[in-house]
Amino acid sequence: MDDAREFDVVVLGAGAVGENVADRASRTGLDVAVVEGALVGGECSYWACMPSKALLRPGDALAAARAVPGADTAVTGPVDVSAVLARRDEVAAHWDDAGQVAWVEGAGLTLLRGHARFAGPRRLVVTTSDGDVTVTARRAVVVATGSVAAVPAALRDVRPWTSREATSAHVVPRRLAVVGGGVVATEMATAFADLGAEVTVLVRGDRLLPSAEPFAGEAVLRSLVDRGVRVSLGAQVTSASRDDDGVHLVVERVTGDDDGVGAAAPETLTVDEVLAATGRLPATEDLGLEALGLRPGDALPVDDALAVRGVDGGWLFAAGDVTGRTATTHQGKYDARVVGDVVAARFDPRPTTDVDDAAVAGGEPLSRAAEAEAGDWSRYRATADHAAVPQVVFTRPQVAWVGRTQAQARDAGLDVAVVGYELGDLAGATVTAADYRGRVQIVVDRARDVVVGATFVGPDVADMLHAATVAVVGEVPLSRLWHAVPSYPTLSEVWLRLLETAGR
Amino acid sequence: MDDAREFDVVVLGAGAVGENVADRASRTGLDVAVVEGALVGGECSYWACMPSKALLRPGDALAAARAVPGADTAVTGPVDVSAVLARRDEVAAHWDDAGQVAWVEGAGLTLLRGHARFAGPRRLVVTTSDGDVTVTARRAVVVATGSVAAVPAALRDVRPWTSREATSAHVVPRRLAVVGGGVVATEMATAFADLGAEVTVLVRGDRLLPSAEPFAGEAVLRSLVDRGVRVSLGAQVTSASRDDDGVHLVVERVTGDDDGVGAAAPETLTVDEVLAATGRLPATEDLGLEALGLRPGDALPVDDALAVRGVDGGWLFAAGDVTGRTATTHQGKYDARVVGDVVAARFDPRPTTDVDDAAVAGGEPLSRAAEAEAGDWSRYRATADHAAVPQVVFTRPQVAWVGRTQAQARDAGLDVAVVGYELGDLAGATVTAADYRGRVQIVVDRARDVVVGATFVGPDVADMLHAATVAVVGEVPLSRLWHAVPSYPTLSEVWLRLLETAGR
Repeated sequence: MDDAREFDVVVLGAGAVGENVADRASRTGLDVAVVEGALVGGECSYWACMPSKALLRPGDALAAARAVPGADTAVTGPVDVSAVLARRDEVAAHWDDAGQVAWVEGAGLTLLRGHARFAGPRRLVVTTSDGDVTVTARRAVVVATGSVAAVPAALRDVRPWTSREATSAHVVPRRLAVVGGGVVATEMATAFADLGAEVTVLVRGDRLLPSAEPFAGEAVLRSLVDRGVRVSLGAQVTSASRDDDGVHLVVERVTGDDDGVGAAAPETLTVDEVLAATGRLPATEDLGLEALGLRPGDALPVDDALAVRGVDGGWLFAAGDVTGRTATTHQGKYDARVVGDVVAARFDPRPTTDVDDAAVAGGEPLSRAAEAEAGDWSRYRATADHAAVPQVVFTRPQVAWVGRTQAQARDAGLDVAVVGYELGDLAGATVTAADYRGRVQIVVDRARDVVVGATFVGPDVADMLHAATVAVVGEVPLSRLWHAVPSYPTLSEVWLRLLETAGR
Repeated sequence: MDDAREFDVVVLGAGAVGENVADRASRTGLDVAVVEGALVGGECSYWACMPSKALLRPGDALAAARAVPGADTAVTGPVDVSAVLARRDEVAAHWDDAGQVAWVEGAGLTLLRGHARFAGPRRLVVTTSDGDVTVTARRAVVVATGSVAAVPAALRDVRPWTSREATSAHVVPRRLAVVGGGVVATEMATAFADLGAEVTVLVRGDRLLPSAEPFAGEAVLRSLVDRGVRVSLGAQVTSASRDDDGVHLVVERVTGDDDGVGAAAPETLTVDEVLAATGRLPATEDLGLEALGLRPGDALPVDDALAVRGVDGGWLFAAGDVTGRTATTHQGKYDARVVGDVVAARFDPRPTTDVDDAAVAGGEPLSRAAEAEAGDWSRYRATADHAAVPQVVFTRPQVAWVGRTQAQARDAGLDVAVVGYELGDLAGATVTAADYRGRVQIVVDRARDVVVGATFVGPDVADMLHAATVAVVGEVPLSRLWHAVPSYPTLSEVWLRLLETAGR
């Protein structure tokens, strides 16, 4: 390998975000390299979204069938654990990235296998299996290295599972403790309960899914408890040890307004494995950020064109988890599309006269002029990051939300109307299951008569969310939504009920 | 009972449409009566949407579970026929309308049990079990009597099942012939195949679901055939007889451009029951329409405020199937809301000075002035009937569409782009089932950059439709939809793929 290479654009990280950045940045003819030290395809493909959903779907499908009179008696067993794990292995491509590598190369991008560190502005040293290579970016560098699991100090010595080990597990622990109450914690508690583990969830806070509306976490909590999962709120692991009997966790009660650990006697919980699901940290620890005057380990703060703030010269961009702005694959990919288009337009290598009306192969024109003038909701600005970030949690019930919660909307100074409806009261619920339970709530900005947030809780609501996302992003007034007729008897009829409840 | 009664408004028919008309018309204080000779709640509750979905859901839930590795082996039987029928009985409220009657009375409406015939403008004779009552509407009459199954002449003598007998059946015929290829035909073929019947579908035309995009009917046809249903296209029943061996159908081939019956030798098909699913007729045969100068049996043509055209005085309205404008419960209810609000505003009994700013209890102001000025997309105009009518067919795969098909858009003179994507290529499909097959297609009006039609085909797509309905009704440009991020890995990610395919 040459020990010095040059590209127009260098993208750090070949997860879903990095791949999308690179693909779109190359659309005006820029020469783009992607640097990846681990598997091409990233966290989501191998250790997060995909394998976790593969673990959850079989239990979900059986639960749905069991809830239908006339179908229930045909379901005679639990999930087949080895078949579930085998399917998960397939969905994770057996942790082999050959298919993804082929896609990168087919897209005309250069893949550099190695770990990149900044040596200075637009200059990187990539450590490969063949030695170090100095890589210079003529135009731009985009950091898309993602995030890593945060492991609490009390658990570090016992080498706990993180989301990686949980989603790729080949053995189901008999007793599993899950530390945390967010998306990873609730999804993995659900999955491992399906797989037969005795699951205990230890949550420091006073509810599950704290970033969602409170009724969402309450529904998931009730359902976990109904299925035999122990959920302990206000519980903090203060120390841990591992021996031949398993992992011993010392758990204390969190009490008082100061979140201090209380005076009640600590309890010891012994399990076979413990999953640390206590959040994520931007993967910037070992990128040589100090060479740019930035602090390793910090998120990279960006503007709406995904340019990193506080770095001169306009050459450094970031997208995805590393920005601290988004924490999901889909929103990271959205940012990736924006920054890819920004880079493609700002550094368009074609003569200016050719550009403005030029349709890029397979796409719309990318225009320097349009980029320079780009306002909110243009393809060059990640406006939805502020207004319409969706999230789906594949628990049972599923939880899906977009935009602002009631509390967030009020904190933003909006005069809001909050309208909710029980999904179980719909005709569509009656035919879906004997005892369908769920709830939808929308948050309406009264001044503009538009939906600014929506939360769906219930079986199979994941794909109901997008109607809300379109309404929020499209700023479609309620008076117009009144004409968007949901089909009878689907669960989407909840929209009619919400609008009726709102006083249409 | 008095033999003469007067109300401000008389609504004929207490199905879902009539109930909604009456409820909303009463919101400004009008005195409203509803006349119903059969069960309050109507066709949909007892003999259509609800029982049909109850018959289909168990098979659907088992098929979904069987498609998931790790869940498939836990499904050991077919549906339990008697449990399915028992659940269907519950969903149809055992054909007892006490709950619906209580709702009507609780809403402050007067229920007249009997059959109404016009005796002249605003004057009806209602035949009740206690004799005839003359009913006068001071302000308006709204006809919402729905539709009845059309039975082809060749089948009349054998008293075939219609949708009513099929959805309320208490015995599953060993051999069932379904005549027709539309929504009722395909749904009931699917349901009775689940219940163990040997089903033959006889379709005069050359495809199933002729009002949908062709790929929808093709997918349903393939699936029916794969599950052992015989589907015969271009097949017309020319005569039929019934004896102790069952029903004998003489089936001839439809050939040639003139749809004539061909020269090939007719075949005889013997079955235990035959379902006539060949469309519906407006229920206007026995309403005394001749007293108004209208022809019995015809649909009642209406304007966008649902006023019947060709009747003087502005007192006659119609909504639902009877108008020939819509054929679904949900769109009929939409029209019902519009006509209810129009009647409530036009005939508002309150002094004019109180009206314009008056908030009606539980609702927005209904305003005479606003009604008079109402344009498209106001609450007083059924604009969506022309642009955004949704339909969901609960076959396997499900079929859902809204707005214009490709052919309809072109016939309307639009310059359209048609963009399709295979659902099976999505990450979300991979985790939903081992071999998920489906397709989504959108029709885009290039001039306005908006979606004017969308079709979804695949398992569980019913609730994906509403996102398209909101986009069509909201006229949200593709450039804005680009910011409506679908969550990964849901099936809704198809929106991203469609927009990418469209060249975003």
